[in-house]
Amino acid sequence: MSGGARAVARCRELGHAPFSDRADGLWRGYLTPAHRAALDRVGQWMREAGMTTRIDAAINLIGRYDGTGEGPPLIIGSHIDSVRDAGVYDGPLGVMLGIECVAALHAAGRRLPFAIEVIAFGDEEGSRFPVAMLTSRAVAGTLDDVPDLVDAEGITLETALAGFAATPEAMRTARHPGALAYFETHIEQGPVLESEGLALGVVTGIAAQARYAVTVTGTAGHAGTCAMGLRRDALAGAADMVLAIESLAQARGGDLVATVGRLDVLPGAANVIPGEVRFTIDVRAGEAARRDAAAQDICAAIGAIADRRGLGCDARRVHVLPASPCDPQLMDRLEAALVEAGHRPRRLVSGAGHDAMVLAALAPVAMLFIRCRAGISHNPAEYVEAADADAALAVMLGFLDKLGDWCA
Amino acid sequence: MSGGARAVARCRELGHAPFSDRADGLWRGYLTPAHRAALDRVGQWMREAGMTTRIDAAINLIGRYDGTGEGPPLIIGSHIDSVRDAGVYDGPLGVMLGIECVAALHAAGRRLPFAIEVIAFGDEEGSRFPVAMLTSRAVAGTLDDVPDLVDAEGITLETALAGFAATPEAMRTARHPGALAYFETHIEQGPVLESEGLALGVVTGIAAQARYAVTVTGTAGHAGTCAMGLRRDALAGAADMVLAIESLAQARGGDLVATVGRLDVLPGAANVIPGEVRFTIDVRAGEAARRDAAAQDICAAIGAIADRRGLGCDARRVHVLPASPCDPQLMDRLEAALVEAGHRPRRLVSGAGHDAMVLAALAPVAMLFIRCRAGISHNPAEYVEAADADAALAVMLGFLDKLGDWCA
Repeated sequence: MSGGARAVARCRELGHAPFSDRADGLWRGYLTPAHRAALDRVGQWMREAGMTTRIDAAINLIGRYDGTGEGPPLIIGSHIDSVRDAGVYDGPLGVMLGIECVAALHAAGRRLPFAIEVIAFGDEEGSRFPVAMLTSRAVAGTLDDVPDLVDAEGITLETALAGFAATPEAMRTARHPGALAYFETHIEQGPVLESEGLALGVVTGIAAQARYAVTVTGTAGHAGTCAMGLRRDALAGAADMVLAIESLAQARGGDLVATVGRLDVLPGAANVIPGEVRFTIDVRAGEAARRDAAAQDICAAIGAIADRRGLGCDARRVHVLPASPCDPQLMDRLEAALVEAGHRPRRLVSGAGHDAMVLAALAPVAMLFIRCRAGISHNPAEYVEAADADAALAVMLGFLDKLGDWCA
Repeated sequence: MSGGARAVARCRELGHAPFSDRADGLWRGYLTPAHRAALDRVGQWMREAGMTTRIDAAINLIGRYDGTGEGPPLIIGSHIDSVRDAGVYDGPLGVMLGIECVAALHAAGRRLPFAIEVIAFGDEEGSRFPVAMLTSRAVAGTLDDVPDLVDAEGITLETALAGFAATPEAMRTARHPGALAYFETHIEQGPVLESEGLALGVVTGIAAQARYAVTVTGTAGHAGTCAMGLRRDALAGAADMVLAIESLAQARGGDLVATVGRLDVLPGAANVIPGEVRFTIDVRAGEAARRDAAAQDICAAIGAIADRRGLGCDARRVHVLPASPCDPQLMDRLEAALVEAGHRPRRLVSGAGHDAMVLAALAPVAMLFIRCRAGISHNPAEYVEAADADAALAVMLGFLDKLGDWCA
């Protein structure tokens, strides 16, 4: 069995009992019995690949393969927790391919100038406690304060950690002393690579995100008695705005996306002209400047639509996340490895968050995306071809060689 | 005080206790204490105007002013029940102006060739029992079957009628033996007359109505990871459809109106591209053929939008009401009276239902609309100028004269 095929098969093995906390699908929550079983199994695979293993104070599993030098290690990581009713590849595939990298080096009797640490993070999704990326923040040293968290069944984080002989206070001691770089391979969770016939892509960073709440105010009225020309229909205005948002985002193209995901109509009766509509806008781009320029155009466009239609319009920014760019030199090396392996180069931004965006506080970051079928993720239908995992493994090994040449 | 001013003042008097069933605004429900008080007060006004009064088996109040001939009477009617938190003019103003017509004839010692019966219908709004126009249907002879009805407090129609010494079985005996015509004056409940600077309009009929339920199906996806060009966004598609519906209705103009009053987005999260949208379309026009032609164009347009965007679309007709046209000869005479009184002629369809649409089964129907401020109705802010009520009264009296000439 090839390394990629084995990585994919192992993700599938982790997709059910005892590695899932539910019988009718996959949910592996942080610090649950399924998490404990996965720590045991993945630790065993790490040791078989030639690594020593340990579990840190945040209950991350870390496998280490020494290098020839004494410098800081390269971290290859991703997460092994999942959302509820998950697919099996989101997270674990990056960990399994990290293990395969070491297994290949070990089988060849090779050591690189730097050590490799493969980390299986315990919490990225935030599917058990209402906060995400707890354990990568502990490793990155950005977990200033561990809040009092309680899961859906009333179990506190403190109680859950106690089951693993750990405490909230000690989580911060999982802070890593320093890394050469952080490298994560992950499924794309979107349809871009597939649509272009590509197995792999180099991630340029995690998108800068902004969210707006918009309220459009018109005049409610009787659907039968108010002539078309006399209406101030909040929904017709909002529809105009939704289309303007779509076409502005399409015109800018590239990594810029804008989404109206929620829209509520008041009063919401079939025979009443809508008097008020509230909707959200989610805008993302690889760079905050591109995001903000687009958001500014969008706000101007919806304001103009409101003016033209005699509607009130209030748009306010309710949420913002900065961009988390990948390291340019690492991107170049990763792309070179990808081209040498016979792939057409493709750089793309990640619209979703990943542990990598947290680890950027610790070390320069590189990320490789693997295509997933139809872009489907967070869903049992999530699917990755073993051949694509093999392709990723080859590029990862090429990238490690380039890092080795650079450090030597 | 002029007749119009008195009619308006009486509507205001009926707007509070004891003629309202609530202390903080107006609600006069069918067969309530407020209804009973109104029957007494309005009956007194009818008798002062020279009429004899009776209450029929459906608890409608009927005032009669004999004519010189023995033929069937002209009925002038409207309703004295109200919606909850109502304005004071919707319904009562038509009854009060009917009384003023008779008062003017009586004061002048005049009899027309036909008798006049002024009817104050007890239930048009259906605000107490979950069925509307019960009592006009009883008069028109279209109340085939009185259903078992219960109000919000658990009181049955039977119990409520018993308080007025009536029974559900006997309601049908309120059927009128036959009328020369039915004539109703009502506030417009829309902004058309006001927007054109007109006090009055001739109603051409009650609009034909059809309602559609539309489901648009796309693909839900991550708002961050799905590039704009690869989306099948159900909300963007629905927005396109809402605008198409608006512009098709605007292009047809006149009495045609189309409204999307309700629209639900699934799953409805800010960071998820909408996978499904469900919305309603309400289409109305004076004639069923115009309504259906517009609805057909609308369905074709939304189908084309769905095809262009690769979306699924299911539109089904869930509700239909036929048009109820006013009598052409009566319309001509009413318009002639309106022009003779110095008004610019304006014909308009009624998008809302009225007792007149029920009485069309009994006799030819004519309707006169009076402008109301900002088109506001079913709201305490409902407002009519006394001068407009005077103008309506003059046109009503002119119309009665023309009917008299015609019958003579």
